[in-house]
Amino acid sequence: MTVTQTTGTYRDRIMQAHEIAVTLPTVRMDDPVSKAVQLMIVKRLPGLVVVDDADRPVAVLPGTQVLRLLIPQSYRDDPALVRIVDEIHADLFWHGPGNLTVGDCMPNPVPKAATVAPDATLLEVATAMANKRSPLIAVIDDSGRLMGGVTLERLLTSLAIAGPND
Amino acid sequence: MTVTQTTGTYRDRIMQAHEIAVTLPTVRMDDPVSKAVQLMIVKRLPGLVVVDDADRPVAVLPGTQVLRLLIPQSYRDDPALVRIVDEIHADLFWHGPGNLTVGDCMPNPVPKAATVAPDATLLEVATAMANKRSPLIAVIDDSGRLMGGVTLERLLTSLAIAGPND
Repeated sequence: MTVTQTTGTYRDRIMQAHEIAVTLPTVRMDDPVSKAVQLMIVKRLPGLVVVDDADRPVAVLPGTQVLRLLIPQSYRDDPALVRIVDEIHADLFWHGPGNLTVGDCMPNPVPKAATVAPDATLLEVATAMANKRSPLIAVIDDSGRLMGGVTLERLLTSLAIAGPND
Repeated sequence: MTVTQTTGTYRDRIMQAHEIAVTLPTVRMDDPVSKAVQLMIVKRLPGLVVVDDADRPVAVLPGTQVLRLLIPQSYRDDPALVRIVDEIHADLFWHGPGNLTVGDCMPNPVPKAATVAPDATLLEVATAMANKRSPLIAVIDDSGRLMGGVTLERLLTSLAIAGPND
């Protein structure tokens, strides 16, 4: 009985993903790329979650891959071309996406969304971030719907607060 | 003559990497991992530059790969093991690195540092970030010494400000 109570106490203080997740603004495949980038800047997010009509994440884009959506296809895979591009045009690529949507610019195939279950431990969240190289992880419920997200910054501050001496 | 002046005017307003780079705190291979992580949290950086004794970048670590330094070797490559690890220990991995140094925990071989020259255009910086999946790029001089760094956030705000109507 004492053992059970002790175990219960330990478990109560183990932080889980849903406890440190925050509500995230999201984008959809048919949103303009410019809207997605602006959202990330204004909300100071390290990435973006792209959801479908049922609010299920179809992609979790690290910030560098949101930036990638802005880069014209012809430059993405050719560093040599990027170096010789006329300087006058080099600043203007930002204005290039025009009416392109997030879906138009996504890699094909779309990589599997970086998600965890609500009861994932912080170690599981950390391992997912490190392995997927994504500073943003979506927390989804049993039906795959987005519950929130954990950012790298929030994970690190939560880890700094968590510990054996709480 | 008019043409030359016009070209000059255009060139003057093209932003280059050194103009948007900021001074970065750095770490060395023999610094403790805990110091590196704390530095990244306190300075709110999206990654860290690891330099040698001559202040030349030997690695540019995205935040997710700084986080990776904290994860014990045995969990890094085995998601199944991470899921079954005792919950009580799952929060404590943070306290694990102890006296381990950045060099002890770096991937082997160390990936080539993500750098650009001071006169790189913002398109070159953006392409480097997207291709290396690094929200931090080091700006180095001719001798390979660190001059500063460009963060993803700074690049995006600079792009939003730059444009044809400046």
